[in-house]
Amino acid sequence: MKYSIITIGREHGSGGRTIAKMVADKLQIPLYDRKLIQMIAEDSGFAASYVETSEMRRTSSFLYNLYFDSRNLPLDDQVFLAQANVITKLAEKGPCVIVGRCADYILRDKPSVLKVFVYAPMEERVRRVEEDYGEKASDYQRYLQKIDRHRSAYYDRFTGEEWGNPHNYHLLINSAIGLPAAAQQIITLAGGKEKE
Amino acid sequence: MKYSIITIGREHGSGGRTIAKMVADKLQIPLYDRKLIQMIAEDSGFAASYVETSEMRRTSSFLYNLYFDSRNLPLDDQVFLAQANVITKLAEKGPCVIVGRCADYILRDKPSVLKVFVYAPMEERVRRVEEDYGEKASDYQRYLQKIDRHRSAYYDRFTGEEWGNPHNYHLLINSAIGLPAAAQQIITLAGGKEKE
Repeated sequence: MKYSIITIGREHGSGGRTIAKMVADKLQIPLYDRKLIQMIAEDSGFAASYVETSEMRRTSSFLYNLYFDSRNLPLDDQVFLAQANVITKLAEKGPCVIVGRCADYILRDKPSVLKVFVYAPMEERVRRVEEDYGEKASDYQRYLQKIDRHRSAYYDRFTGEEWGNPHNYHLLINSAIGLPAAAQQIITLAGGKEKE
Repeated sequence: MKYSIITIGREHGSGGRTIAKMVADKLQIPLYDRKLIQMIAEDSGFAASYVETSEMRRTSSFLYNLYFDSRNLPLDDQVFLAQANVITKLAEKGPCVIVGRCADYILRDKPSVLKVFVYAPMEERVRRVEEDYGEKASDYQRYLQKIDRHRSAYYDRFTGEEWGNPHNYHLLINSAIGLPAAAQQIITLAGGKEKE
């Protein structure tokens, strides 16, 4: 394959995780998605639930700067370092698909990494989280916008880059083209042949 | 083909026009690129040079509003209307590839239209306009940023949408993946078989 590691950033409700699974299944390579949480928890010593919610925590830069000293990193920074450590090791082990967790940034200098971002129209995201994922919210659009803001702030804080900015990716796919079509785009670009 | 009309928006120097030509050649469908200028000129009665430079003209919204009256449209609006008219007719004639000129917006309601945006890292754009296109500028980065601002303002004025915003496209491709690979992505998604 031209690219052996595939990172997939995604808007919540875009179907990005399903697309990642299709790609990993067809290429028969490991998928690191929820599994990552457990690995980062083990590496860092934090509870999996704390790792999982790290991108939903708001950290003021001001407080962060006050608190920071090199011997005593803030907790979320420790989580991020563990995350970077786990993701770097996984990428060294061999071909795989990694969903979210700033993997595109963590692996940005490796030429074998294909960086993809999946997004979708708001009405499709609302339908998906409500009907397919069964998530509960009084106002789904506001709920998704809040998740976007958190992911964006988290990405920005740890990478200094803008989440979803085309220039940080090779390919951005609107999943309205269909999830299998989106998976096919990634497989074609990765240069992999589907395994039968 | 799943999508018979392919619109390609692009940053100047991204190689988007070359990619469009590759797609049109491989699918053996017409390419409307510079040809469009002449057709819009004929439809509107304006000189081709006036049509060509329309997206480089700055129009203040304030002056625009003062000037506007329904019987006497500002000149650039007349050009845009001719452009919309020509592009709509072309799309009715059959499969084709259309480069730039807000075609994605003009044809936004047609399900058979695949909307693609091609971009590239600044250093590759600079290299391309300097070495491949032989354009002259004292500061290529500023030159390209100026073109970006003009295209963006033009798109915004006539569509009310943001130029290059992922949500207005099906697919955004970083041409750093290679121009043939980018063309292949579009061909795969259009659902067309390459003609030998």
